[in-house]
Amino acid sequence: MTQNAAIGIFDSGVGGLTVFREVVRILPHEDIVYFGDVGRYPYGGRSKEIITKFARQDIALLQEHDVKFIICACNTASAVALDDIAGDYDIDMIGVINPGAQAAVERTRNGRIGVIGTHATIGSNAYARVIHDIDPALKVFSLACPLFVPLAEEGYIDKEATYLITRDYLQTMHDVEIDTLVLGCTHYPLLKHVIAEVMGEKVTLIDSGEETARVAHKLLSDAHLLSASTSKAQHTFFVSDVPEKFSSIATRFLGRHIEKITRVDISGY
Amino acid sequence: MTQNAAIGIFDSGVGGLTVFREVVRILPHEDIVYFGDVGRYPYGGRSKEIITKFARQDIALLQEHDVKFIICACNTASAVALDDIAGDYDIDMIGVINPGAQAAVERTRNGRIGVIGTHATIGSNAYARVIHDIDPALKVFSLACPLFVPLAEEGYIDKEATYLITRDYLQTMHDVEIDTLVLGCTHYPLLKHVIAEVMGEKVTLIDSGEETARVAHKLLSDAHLLSASTSKAQHTFFVSDVPEKFSSIATRFLGRHIEKITRVDISGY
Repeated sequence: MTQNAAIGIFDSGVGGLTVFREVVRILPHEDIVYFGDVGRYPYGGRSKEIITKFARQDIALLQEHDVKFIICACNTASAVALDDIAGDYDIDMIGVINPGAQAAVERTRNGRIGVIGTHATIGSNAYARVIHDIDPALKVFSLACPLFVPLAEEGYIDKEATYLITRDYLQTMHDVEIDTLVLGCTHYPLLKHVIAEVMGEKVTLIDSGEETARVAHKLLSDAHLLSASTSKAQHTFFVSDVPEKFSSIATRFLGRHIEKITRVDISGY
Repeated sequence: MTQNAAIGIFDSGVGGLTVFREVVRILPHEDIVYFGDVGRYPYGGRSKEIITKFARQDIALLQEHDVKFIICACNTASAVALDDIAGDYDIDMIGVINPGAQAAVERTRNGRIGVIGTHATIGSNAYARVIHDIDPALKVFSLACPLFVPLAEEGYIDKEATYLITRDYLQTMHDVEIDTLVLGCTHYPLLKHVIAEVMGEKVTLIDSGEETARVAHKLLSDAHLLSASTSKAQHTFFVSDVPEKFSSIATRFLGRHIEKITRVDISGY
């Protein structure tokens, strides 16, 4: 494994691009191979056995590209599969749950943390479990906000309806007086300013993707695996079905067009 | 093929239950086998080749249960695959597009028809094509309303935000003065009263599922294949992944709980 190898990122689809974006910002000289499993999206709602199989295939695909480090950008796979399988590989890998949970624990002042995510992530209780492993005295309030994903994907953001839905969902979080809110779904950073406005400035928002990029930086640095390159980094994209939908949503998520997206048949991995 | 065999219905997921509901209403004595391909939902956004393969597998599964007639309740598969493959089978099958389009042509008075659906259905232009095959002089206005599916699935219906989104989407349909609007997605009947209120009483709404059930009744009657049974009909449900999400949305779609849902591995068909 060489320090100039790429970082691999996989996700069930397009949501992981918000993690990709943070990795690019924090580690601008790192090559990145991104795999979006759009052909089998979403992972949430599937059985643990199936999600674990999918994660292993996604990792196998990334390993073909000689990556030095793997980020599981999918909250569902991070919650359900990653801890069980990470030990089977001789490459370091992290998910998005632990970094988000850790950051929330560090930043809360009143010990009351909110977590929002999809039905699958909230149902797994993964964030609350990790937070309580660190400090059992903290109070964690978890809430599924399933309409946030389609609103983000459709770019339906600065609309009155989106503010109404956000207020509707987050009223409980106000009522229970959290001071820290974990955005436990990779799509939610696109609604960050709406969520911030609804929650008010006293509530700290934790972007799991940003925290994950920070942890990746630290782990690569500790392992002396940061890239020595100062040239423009290469970003390579693979998807598991026709790339059109991925491409159009990616433009919205990244604020720029992705030139080349290669389709692969993931079932063979 | 016997007249007391069941009707088979397949869909990419839970949306086809609105078609199922109409078939039950119009053909209460017919046994029904429903397959929801939740493990590979949604079909929209996938390639024609993949959707055709999926439709053939879904049909093969239904045929194992000796069905006498097949309804493809999925707009995407109806639009992209059904016409190409129906001739390969010795069993009659219909999709949801032709009945919806036919009903719109019969009911418009001013010759201006609106069609709403998912990105995939609208992108396929299937409704407009069928309408123009019947009468090239009709004006067809097609519009994707992608947020309607998650709003319906989440039961987020009698909310101000849903009315705002509906008004936002359908303003154009007002402007172009349609008098008939096709609900070209199986989820949309759940938002029917919102759409009706926004469009006003002068606009006739066409529920493709209801029209499909009517056509199924006529075809079965013409073929002397209507069930002779007067006992309580059997409804059997199969899904291609864990049934929990299907089950909870089904309760919302049907207004009653489904007792037994069997999981099958569709990849073997």
